[in-house]
Amino acid sequence: MPLIDEKEKAVILLSGGIDSTVLLHLLSRRGYALYALACRYGQRHSRELECARIQAASAGVAAFHYLDMGFLGGLLREGSALIDSGAPVPDLADIPPDLRDQPPTYVPNRNMLLLSVASAYAEALGAPRVFYGAQAQDEYGYWDCTQDFLERINALLALNRRQPVTVEAPFLRCSKADNVKLGLELGVDFGATWSCYRGGKKACGACPTCVERLNAFKIVGVEDPLSYETGQETP
Amino acid sequence: MPLIDEKEKAVILLSGGIDSTVLLHLLSRRGYALYALACRYGQRHSRELECARIQAASAGVAAFHYLDMGFLGGLLREGSALIDSGAPVPDLADIPPDLRDQPPTYVPNRNMLLLSVASAYAEALGAPRVFYGAQAQDEYGYWDCTQDFLERINALLALNRRQPVTVEAPFLRCSKADNVKLGLELGVDFGATWSCYRGGKKACGACPTCVERLNAFKIVGVEDPLSYETGQETP
Repeated sequence: MPLIDEKEKAVILLSGGIDSTVLLHLLSRRGYALYALACRYGQRHSRELECARIQAASAGVAAFHYLDMGFLGGLLREGSALIDSGAPVPDLADIPPDLRDQPPTYVPNRNMLLLSVASAYAEALGAPRVFYGAQAQDEYGYWDCTQDFLERINALLALNRRQPVTVEAPFLRCSKADNVKLGLELGVDFGATWSCYRGGKKACGACPTCVERLNAFKIVGVEDPLSYETGQETP
Repeated sequence: MPLIDEKEKAVILLSGGIDSTVLLHLLSRRGYALYALACRYGQRHSRELECARIQAASAGVAAFHYLDMGFLGGLLREGSALIDSGAPVPDLADIPPDLRDQPPTYVPNRNMLLLSVASAYAEALGAPRVFYGAQAQDEYGYWDCTQDFLERINALLALNRRQPVTVEAPFLRCSKADNVKLGLELGVDFGATWSCYRGGKKACGACPTCVERLNAFKIVGVEDPLSYETGQETP
């Protein structure tokens, strides 16, 4: 019997949004020693990363790293509306249906890049698993949040000859409403999460992720503690 | 007929070593408009990256970016002898045969990470291809320099719904000697390349990559223009 009951180490990508925050608290409850990464990749604002830091502290992580990859802003600005100095963020209503499978808010290859960093860190730590909060988007989609993506990135990582790391996305088939519900059960403070793609004082209420978030709270039947620019109905 | 004959854009990862330098000049000769990335990932020294900059300029690239991911040094120091403040770099002779398929000089998940950045950049640029200089190591090996790795990373990238990028490694089956020979034909200045894993004033002549480099020049029958700490035989 070991002298101390050692927790299994796991790396988690935190964005400061609802999904990764709920995942963080779920994994903490399940007893993992969590090593959290929050990455700046040139996005318009860092409000969400401040939320990531607050949530990591409240979940009692073993380590929290803020990674500055701001250089990606310069490399990717032609490729995404989420990147500072890129095209403006559209309202969800203004994105034509045939573009919603890879909308203007898609960031080129972002999840593969962040999961590569997380997997490198996990390998160096001796942590067998990397977690990220991909969920089943209702209104739009990204190829790097799918079951196929998960299977193929794990097929790639499995080639490692000493210590293959596995990427897990437990919410891949969960809706945002499922995650809000689970978060409420876990006592998550949703007032310290941020989703809006725009960087205003209040959330805009109209960009793709705001629409999805507001719908999720409406389905669950509770009020979102965040303030919105446009007067949103409360259920 | 277009008014200007537009070159195909391609992204290339440059390390400042022999393989990526020869690849750079080969692709330049073949008429690509090259967008070069040289990455600091916490390695012990930046001599090789200075060489990358010199070679990129001499090849007339369309753009050269030096990416500072120094934060990886802190994340990966337990995982590699190439990382500053990690374990010391061993002589090749001191690496037991059963560790040579993933030796202490392996950097956790490095190539997937760098190729993820390069693929994101290529996607944003509208470049269909990313090139890197992986070659068939004679003395040791890395899982992220293999045909399997190439196939699986391309299977992953192929899921992109708008603009899949392909990773190419034209030297995957070439020995270092093949690359030295090709470089000489292309007029590459090997005096402005750097291979040694240690960061001394002169190359050490004993670490895995120095041994491989010296062998390659010996096979080709020309003298390596670099100076070495230990008196190396010239052919």
